[in-house]
Amino acid sequence: MADQPVVRRRIVKTGISEERTNSSKVQSQYQPYKDAAWGFSNHWYPALFSKELPEDHVEGIQICGTPIVLRRVNGKIFALKDQCLHRGVRLSEKPMCFNKETISCWYHGFTFNLDDGVLSTIVANPDDKLVGTTGITTYPVQEVAGMIFVFVREDDFPDADVPPLSHDLPFRFPENSEKFPHPLWPASPSILDDNAVAHGMHRTGFGNWRIACENGFDNAHILVHKDNTIIHAMDWVLPLGILPTSDDCIATVEDDNGPKGLVQWLFTEKWAPVMQNKELGLKVENTKGRPYRTSVVLPGVLMVENWPEEHVVQYEWYVPITDDTHEYWEVLVRVCPTDAEREKFQYRFNHFYKPLALHGFNDCDLYAREAMQNFYSDGSGWDDEQLMATDISPITWRKLASRWNRGIAKPARGVAGARKDTSLRFKDTADGRRPGYKVIKIEEE
Amino acid sequence: MADQPVVRRRIVKTGISEERTNSSKVQSQYQPYKDAAWGFSNHWYPALFSKELPEDHVEGIQICGTPIVLRRVNGKIFALKDQCLHRGVRLSEKPMCFNKETISCWYHGFTFNLDDGVLSTIVANPDDKLVGTTGITTYPVQEVAGMIFVFVREDDFPDADVPPLSHDLPFRFPENSEKFPHPLWPASPSILDDNAVAHGMHRTGFGNWRIACENGFDNAHILVHKDNTIIHAMDWVLPLGILPTSDDCIATVEDDNGPKGLVQWLFTEKWAPVMQNKELGLKVENTKGRPYRTSVVLPGVLMVENWPEEHVVQYEWYVPITDDTHEYWEVLVRVCPTDAEREKFQYRFNHFYKPLALHGFNDCDLYAREAMQNFYSDGSGWDDEQLMATDISPITWRKLASRWNRGIAKPARGVAGARKDTSLRFKDTADGRRPGYKVIKIEEE
Amino acid sequence: MADQPVVRRRIVKTGISEERTNSSKVQSQYQPYKDAAWGFSNHWYPALFSKELPEDHVEGIQICGTPIVLRRVNGKIFALKDQCLHRGVRLSEKPMCFNKETISCWYHGFTFNLDDGVLSTIVANPDDKLVGTTGITTYPVQEVAGMIFVFVREDDFPDADVPPLSHDLPFRFPENSEKFPHPLWPASPSILDDNAVAHGMHRTGFGNWRIACENGFDNAHILVHKDNTIIHAMDWVLPLGILPTSDDCIATVEDDNGPKGLVQWLFTEKWAPVMQNKELGLKVENTKGRPYRTSVVLPGVLMVENWPEEHVVQYEWYVPITDDTHEYWEVLVRVCPTDAEREKFQYRFNHFYKPLALHGFNDCDLYAREAMQNFYSDGSGWDDEQLMATDISPITWRKLASRWNRGIAKPARGVAGARKDTSLRFKDTADGRRPGYKVIKIEEE
Repeated sequence: MADQPVVRRRIVKTGISEERTNSSKVQSQYQPYKDAAWGFSNHWYPALFSKELPEDHVEGIQICGTPIVLRRVNGKIFALKDQCLHRGVRLSEKPMCFNKETISCWYHGFTFNLDDGVLSTIVANPDDKLVGTTGITTYPVQEVAGMIFVFVREDDFPDADVPPLSHDLPFRFPENSEKFPHPLWPASPSILDDNAVAHGMHRTGFGNWRIACENGFDNAHILVHKDNTIIHAMDWVLPLGILPTSDDCIATVEDDNGPKGLVQWLFTEKWAPVMQNKELGLKVENTKGRPYRTSVVLPGVLMVENWPEEHVVQYEWYVPITDDTHEYWEVLVRVCPTDAEREKFQYRFNHFYKPLALHGFNDCDLYAREAMQNFYSDGSGWDDEQLMATDISPITWRKLASRWNRGIAKPARGVAGARKDTSLRFKDTADGRRPGYKVIKIEEE
Repeated sequence: MADQPVVRRRIVKTGISEERTNSSKVQSQYQPYKDAAWGFSNHWYPALFSKELPEDHVEGIQICGTPIVLRRVNGKIFALKDQCLHRGVRLSEKPMCFNKETISCWYHGFTFNLDDGVLSTIVANPDDKLVGTTGITTYPVQEVAGMIFVFVREDDFPDADVPPLSHDLPFRFPENSEKFPHPLWPASPSILDDNAVAHGMHRTGFGNWRIACENGFDNAHILVHKDNTIIHAMDWVLPLGILPTSDDCIATVEDDNGPKGLVQWLFTEKWAPVMQNKELGLKVENTKGRPYRTSVVLPGVLMVENWPEEHVVQYEWYVPITDDTHEYWEVLVRVCPTDAEREKFQYRFNHFYKPLALHGFNDCDLYAREAMQNFYSDGSGWDDEQLMATDISPITWRKLASRWNRGIAKPARGVAGARKDTSLRFKDTADGRRPGYKVIKIEEE
Repeated sequence: MADQPVVRRRIVKTGISEERTNSSKVQSQYQPYKDAAWGFSNHWYPALFSKELPEDHVEGIQICGTPIVLRRVNGKIFALKDQCLHRGVRLSEKPMCFNKETISCWYHGFTFNLDDGVLSTIVANPDDKLVGTTGITTYPVQEVAGMIFVFVREDDFPDADVPPLSHDLPFRFPENSEKFPHPLWPASPSILDDNAVAHGMHRTGFGNWRIACENGFDNAHILVHKDNTIIHAMDWVLPLGILPTSDDCIATVEDDNGPKGLVQWLFTEKWAPVMQNKELGLKVENTKGRPYRTSVVLPGVLMVENWPEEHVVQYEWYVPITDDTHEYWEVLVRVCPTDAEREKFQYRFNHFYKPLALHGFNDCDLYAREAMQNFYSDGSGWDDEQLMATDISPITWRKLASRWNRGIAKPARGVAGARKDTSLRFKDTADGRRPGYKVIKIEEE
């Protein structure tokens, strides 16, 4: 056999089909997206819920490979690069603050102004030449409706160019109601609305942020949810899937002054529910369920309108931590002008939305996202995937994100996860600690 | 000292000896073997015991870096590439089958014919252009004596060229009795014999498959077993080792129509037991033990005849999972024409063979194999090892395997273990899960 | 925005300051140190405490990526490369010795002379051509005051060039008392003194040995210790820090015949305690504490004189295991001519020094060292750090170590930690085992 030339005469049609939606020509249109394993820089991301950062507390997180420390003083929140410029330790590992204007490094006392990051003194070396000549990057912060947002920028991104938070948040209603009518549901609330209340949770997902994000507005994975308790508790009947019926099934939004993203015309004639698969003998009758609409804006914020109930909207973020972990945020927003409404929303969140929607329903999305990670983690997935008609959604998103992101985050250096295989990580793992989002504080003797 | 040229005048003879058996010239004769870190493709490998795949069950495994899903329908077993061509998830993670002819992906409903792998429909998109134009590789399956074998091929390896299973299984007796006489024991049974029964176990070994395999037929490691309970329970007295006495101590078998491998002429005059080591003052008197013979065939199947008892034969496989893990198979075969004999064999397997031979005895081999892994894992071991006379066995094997393998498996991409250092793996590890062979199914809410 | 050229007009002074102490010119003077991730070879390192290696015991450790096996015979200790030249397993994993002159490999019986490492026989193959033609490296050993030291050399480093142990140990007193006066404390004992007793502990630190070592004699990190129990139990009042007042605040020692290192003139006028930081409103009054002096010699041995009490000295080593782990040794030495004094020293060690100094106080150093590891592990830290005036200590050390080390250890191959991401390591980690210093022996059936 070794000498005979092998004749390949396989019948099965394998390999990459000519018919897949993302030909190499299409792929070339979203190369920047393929390069964005560590996320997009110079965008607003959620960092913590307000209640996670009480007065005078300090917390450390990591976004797009950038370590960030947050401190709240007199109610105001400051965010700085969480890496001492001296020997590189994280300030948040063992918080040390001597006054309300600065944060000091617990190791050698390097002290930084909260507002501009300048090295204002060194505890035991106040006259050192370094003082006043250097500093650490600060990050603009905005707090709305119980959430803290940080503008995660490159070190030299100018203050004057920082866009408003609203440019990185979902489209608002009713101001967009004419452009994007919604006859089946009331105008969706926004986290920026007066009296908006946000309830939610965040947890670490073990996969790249992009495959997580693409799952969020994917219209073709209804199957994953068919056994979910919420479906059966509500007596919903789902179609097999939803198919685009025309080329304008998705509207991209690229206005100068506002978020860049896309809106899917779900529950219009541009998308049709699939009720039958003859080949498999599957047939659904009398579908009954919630009408909803999904949209996504940069840097990767999902909005599901009219979900899980009227007057409530669900936001999701897939905040890049490293190139193979992201912090998965699920947030429900409702406008609650009265205490009674706030209480009711909180109660309903605790006993209905959180267990059945954020956990039960979205848990299935989380495992689907993690299930894709091996395929995409070495870069081969982007080239080998074979996409179908409904994948017009992620492809539209990839192109849009390639056009409008404000920067491709560089592969991180000198931080947790930059080298994945350090003994430090094996130590933590042996101790039962998964890689995560928040800094674990040093335990004192 | 920094200025003085250092004079090296060491006395100890270190470095690579001129006398080692595998000079660089010899090594060049088995370069293909050195390249086969991920195993040999286009060969038959054991996948599961029959009882591990009951009717209508689905299981996922990985062989040579290839993810494989098995499903049994009406008793027949089908094997396909366990990676959806759409977004790369493993079908076996959450099995979904709508009929007896197909398997569907749980994520978006891509549905593949069991028999030819063609994408026959998509649950929610039956008319997609992709349908019928692409598919996933299928793998020929054969089930004998309670074991399921899969032909793990490259995607374009033609059906017509698939060799019979017998070409990748040990030599059979009595048909080879003239060629390879065995005056000390009865003709060994074969798993392919009528009424053959196979009992055994498989578990993951943490090391490359080649160093595992070479341990199997290594005649020089008797020392490892000297304290084993089976030795002392049976009152055996082992020699210190066994040495080849002539160049023809090993016969290679390279017939056109049959397995390619080697047979060692143990318990003939071509191998002599070593009874004494004067230097160390060691002397063995009156050895008493089992006569046996070892042989190995591609793709790495060990046969130990007359072991652990007459009329029983032991097979071993070292099935590559990744380049640093393998599934270690230990199987005992006996021909049992009657129910009484089957019952007795099962009983003896449970209470004697399994605890004392497969565990007690072979556990020592397993740790020896894992103990070599650091030395070989970065490739330096193959160049730095210094071999001795008995190592004619592995060297003969390496050359033979280099000549007759049907393909060198490429380093895997897009699957578990392709990148070893992902956070996904650290998560699993923190949760107490070692890398393994079988897919762990997704737990539902 | 995509079309507009971005104008960078950031105010905060970030990036690398011109004023940092280690400009690129300075850095170029210690390039060898930056290359020494795996440590310095051809130096004496502590291997074990004497009590860890009783008569006839065998232990395996790893230093500078070199596996080393130690055996004690008739009181004398032998050290050899712990990697069989045949198939690379560690001899220490399952010790096998047939006499008092050799150690044999448990796998195939390769037997090495303890004194010169020559392959003197193979258990089952005494006449093999390999015998006598090859061997494994031996390492000179010296045992003093309850500690075992090994000279970890390159394979071809000649016996005749092995320096005395004293060249790799701290400076001695009173013989250096004139050169380095110590009016505030009695002459420090040395481990080489008659009747010297050493008590201590060692444990694995998860970080590179260099950042660990630099923490040892760092005068600017007093802050880390401000809350330590020993400080408050002893009623000490620490200054904010200590600053150099002149260029000669550190003396380097580079005599031909002796250790190469540096002595810091602490508690002289060359270093001034910092009592106040006006910017932060911090003021210390009436400092009260122990006067002490730190010095460090190659290959990275710290001495703290007069600590934690008079007549006691603390030594520390940061023995490289891999490029990202080190064995942290903390040893207290006192001269105890009588049994009563030995007993008292042991008692005080157990009940005061060990809990409050070696653990309580130094635990804070250990976490500080590990906290630096991410910053330095990918090499970026050495270029990005911004140092201050007190960092004259590490910079002086880096230059000195670059000039006087006897060899830069090469990145290890074929040993534990050479590849960090092997499945073998994930297996261990899943089982709860952190990477460590000592070989874990094979468990028998």
